[in-house]
Formats: sequence, C-alpha cells, structure tokens
Amino acid sequence: MNNPLLHGIASLGRIGLDICALITEKKRLFEDYLQDYLAGINTTSGIFDAFSYSLSAGGKRIRPILTMLACETLGGNAMQALPAGLAIEMIHTFSLIHDDLPALDNDSLRRGKPTCHTRFGEATAILAGDALIFQALTVISSSGYPAEVEVDILRVIADVCGIDGLVQGEYLDVMAEGKDLTLKEIADIYRKKTSRLFELCMYSGARIATEDTQKINSLMKYGAHLGLAFQAIDDILDVTSTDGVLGKTSGKDLLQDKATVVKALGLEGARLWAGEMTNIATKSIAEIRDKRSTVLEELAQWMVQRVM
Amino acid sequence: MNNPLLHGIASLGRIGLDICALITEKKRLFEDYLQDYLAGINTTSGIFDAFSYSLSAGGKRIRPILTMLACETLGGNAMQALPAGLAIEMIHTFSLIHDDLPALDNDSLRRGKPTCHTRFGEATAILAGDALIFQALTVISSSGYPAEVEVDILRVIADVCGIDGLVQGEYLDVMAEGKDLTLKEIADIYRKKTSRLFELCMYSGARIATEDTQKINSLMKYGAHLGLAFQAIDDILDVTSTDGVLGKTSGKDLLQDKATVVKALGLEGARLWAGEMTNIATKSIAEIRDKRSTVLEELAQWMVQRVM
Repeated sequence: MNNPLLHGIASLGRIGLDICALITEKKRLFEDYLQDYLAGINTTSGIFDAFSYSLSAGGKRIRPILTMLACETLGGNAMQALPAGLAIEMIHTFSLIHDDLPALDNDSLRRGKPTCHTRFGEATAILAGDALIFQALTVISSSGYPAEVEVDILRVIADVCGIDGLVQGEYLDVMAEGKDLTLKEIADIYRKKTSRLFELCMYSGARIATEDTQKINSLMKYGAHLGLAFQAIDDILDVTSTDGVLGKTSGKDLLQDKATVVKALGLEGARLWAGEMTNIATKSIAEIRDKRSTVLEELAQWMVQRVM
Repeated sequence: MNNPLLHGIASLGRIGLDICALITEKKRLFEDYLQDYLAGINTTSGIFDAFSYSLSAGGKRIRPILTMLACETLGGNAMQALPAGLAIEMIHTFSLIHDDLPALDNDSLRRGKPTCHTRFGEATAILAGDALIFQALTVISSSGYPAEVEVDILRVIADVCGIDGLVQGEYLDVMAEGKDLTLKEIADIYRKKTSRLFELCMYSGARIATEDTQKINSLMKYGAHLGLAFQAIDDILDVTSTDGVLGKTSGKDLLQDKATVVKALGLEGARLWAGEMTNIATKSIAEIRDKRSTVLEELAQWMVQRVM
C-alpha cells in the first residue's frame, strides 16, 4: 500500500465493506436469475447436464455483475442487464470448458469441482461448450431489447470473442507456454483472453441504458483496463494462493511455464502493473463521475486490493 | 427407378442437366464470394490458417446454394443471400471440424484432405471451430440486412444449432454408436444433425426476400425433409461409394457401427425412405409452385437420383 502507483486508492477498509455488500447483492440477483433460467429450459438434451453443471459451478460472476453496474451507471436498471450478463457468463463458461480440455490447458479442477470433461467426458464437454455459445445467442436474440440493441450487442460479442478476441487469446496462451514473451506480448494475450470480455460487459450494460457513444466508450475503456488488472491479479494469486482458496489448481502457471506478468516482471512488478491498469480504469470514467460511477471506481480498487 | 415412392420423379435426364448447370453457377458465385471474403479479413491470428483451410476445402456448398435458391424462390436476389449462406457454411464447417475430433468421430480425411486437427493439431482445430461460430455472427450482424431480419436469422441459427439442434445431433450421433436404434430415433438424429440446418438455409434465404410467414414455412418444411433425404443419401453413399468419390473415409459408418437408415432398413429400405422424404419436400412447396419453385423440386429429385 506504499506503492506510488496505488496513490489515490484510499479508505479501502470502508469502501471494501460497501462494495462487498453491493457485489453480494448483485451476485445473488444473477444466481437467482440463472437458476430460474435453467429451470425454465425444457430439453431432453444429453448435453444439458454438462451445460448446466458448468454454468452453475459458481465463480465470482464478475462479468454479469459488471454488466449490471455498467447499465446502472448510465441510468438503466440492473434487472434489464441480466439477459446480457447471462449471455456473457455463458460465453465465459464455454471458454473455460474448452480451455480446460486435455488438448489445451488440460486442467482437472475448476471452481473447486472436477472440470467438465473430467466429469462428463471429452466429447460431451466439447459439445457443451459449443451449445453454450448458441444459447448465449438465444438469450440475446430473445431478450426483448430493441432489435438494434440486440444486433449491436451480438456484433460486439462476435468481435470480442472471435478470431481476434477470446478464442485467439486462448490460442496465444497455449502457444506461449515455455516461451519468454515481452510485457507487450503478454498484455496482448491478457487483452484478448480476458480484457475484451470485460469490455463487452461494459458495452452491453451501457448500450442497454443509452446510445451516448462517448459514455459507452468511457465505460469500455474502464472495462478493458479492469480486465487487464483482473488477469494480472488472477496470475498473482496463482502464485501466492492455495487450491482451496482459488477453487482451481494453484501454481499451475509456473508448472506449465505460462506467459504471465508475474513471469515477466516478478511478483512486485506484477502488483505494480495491476495497480497501474486499475488506475487507468478508474481515470477512464472520471469524466462521468457521479454517485453511480463511484461504485465502479470502488470495485476496481477493491479488486486490486486482493493482491496488495 | 421402379420404386412406387419415387413416382413423380420423371424426366430426370433433362432436369439433371439444367439443375446441374444452375448448381454449378450458384456454387461458383459462392466460392468467389468466399474467397473475396477471406482475402478481406485482416488478421494476424494464428487460428486463421486452420479456419481458412477448412472453409476453403470445397464440398458441395449445398447450404449456401439452398439459401440462394430460397431467396430467389420468394422473389429476392441470390446475391442478397450470400452473407447468410456464408454464415451457415461457417457453422457447417465448425460442426465438421469438431465432429472430426479424436474425442468424437476421430476422422482423418474430409473432402479429400486431412481433417483440421490432423493438419493443425487438436488445440488449434477446437479453437478454429469456435472462431467459425463467432465469425458467422459477425457476417450476419454486419450483413446490412435490416436489424429485425438480422435478429430473426440469428435467433433461428441459435435455435437450430444449440442444445436441441446441431450440437445435440452430434452428441446423439456419437452416443448411438453400436446401439440398435429405431427408425424414429435415427430420424431424430438426422433431423438435428442435418435437417435443421437445411431448414435454416431455407428460412434465412426466404426471410431476406419476404415477411410472408406461410411461404417461409413452406420452404422450411421443404428444407427439413430435403435435409432428411440428404443425410440418408449421404449414409447410402458411405456404403456404396469409395474414398476417392466421397472425398472422405468411406465405409466408416459400418466400421463405427453408426446409427443410419441403412443399418435400420437395409440399402433398399434406405433408398425408399430417402425417396419418401424427397417427395414430402417437393409436396411442401406445391402451393407456391411457379417457375422459381420448380428449381427446388428439380434439385430435390436430382439429389435423390444419386442413390437410385
């Protein structure tokens, strides 16, 4: 906390309590919505168990929470943002299932439970991941948002997830194992595999609330940098935490010789970098500062505090 | 050809020539459009080679051709249907890549070339398949169709491909290996893994041209049954053809003890069934019979003729 880059991150004790309560409330809102949604799916599909298992496996639900907060920040209602948040969580879950496969990260533990392919077999896991993408489409295209909003969100989903986004991020991540990458190259992987999806959360929530491009862009910049900080924090925790705390195999990055900011900069350097990204995130929304955007600032500060 | 179920399939010699020329012309239109599209993609993605390889590997292009014909049948222009046809071909290609994976069908030959994972490795193939889904979204959501048309097509894509469609069809197909399924169960697999995508082609092409629900529904019924016939024909050819003709490993269904109409009904029974589905397809569009819908009838008859 004596770090000069973290200057401005003050009064975290009090903020921590408030933001924790707010996150818990939003998380509960999402979990209820998700369980209602899953209960309402009428299917005999053999993939559904795997699909539902992975989607219900918990996790921080940071993406739907961000989507709700973005919507509220620009004057919308958190409830309105739930379909978009659900679609994005489905896409996130798809990426985890495919990422955990033997041909990719070969991970057997995720969120404290066996990974999808460990539990249901590889064929089912591949197909459950695929099904989640299409279900995300169904959620957006049946959300009741105006058609232009639905198409705008779907366009950004495609852009953020496709050949220059999430999927490419996973590719680069796997290919980078054992290599010495520059910070710029690592940041590019972080950008694609994590930060663009955070940007999508902010875009979707914001687009539901407003057509004001400038405000939407400010929130997207916040999301992009929060995502970079989040991935750095995740990689720091991989080194400093245990399986029980993480809910996944800790120390795995080191074992697989993954390209992380910790590998490139060391632990202290990685902390500095995460702090720097957090500061850029909060500065991005300075111009729309009001009571609502303060929540986003506090969220960013609370998040980075976990590794400081 | 003495089959009573094929009654009405007449003058195929002449029809065959006309429809062949028309299909060749539409196929060329699509191939040119695809090559222009691929050349216009500006990416440094390491997945792009695999993505492009699988998409350019040829094949019959029956899905984009159907999309164009559906559009023309209801008064639209074939060119208008090209983006929808491309998106559907991308989805079809994604399904082939994932279906060929070792955990699923474990096939090494496709369209006369090594399958995607054989050529690029399993991780890249999984991710290239994923990327194709998102690229299909990009194509539709940037097509320039009215927003309502884009959302309608995307909604049907999601429905046809997801947990009760294509992906579930692949799941059932893998799980059915070595089992004795009823004709009804086999038809359900055909419906999901093949026929619903044909239905999507007809829907998309039709929806671009018109809002007339009745006509759209007729074309969708045609597509659904043409798809069933198409899959039966494919499975008959798997038994009666050679690798060189098929461009993929022939006799594989038998080796893997796949659930096919040939297994359930024998070769002659399968031919009858394919003829029956073809007849239902052509009858579905009887009410919109004019010069343009005749092409769809001829196409269906030409297709089934391959196995008679």
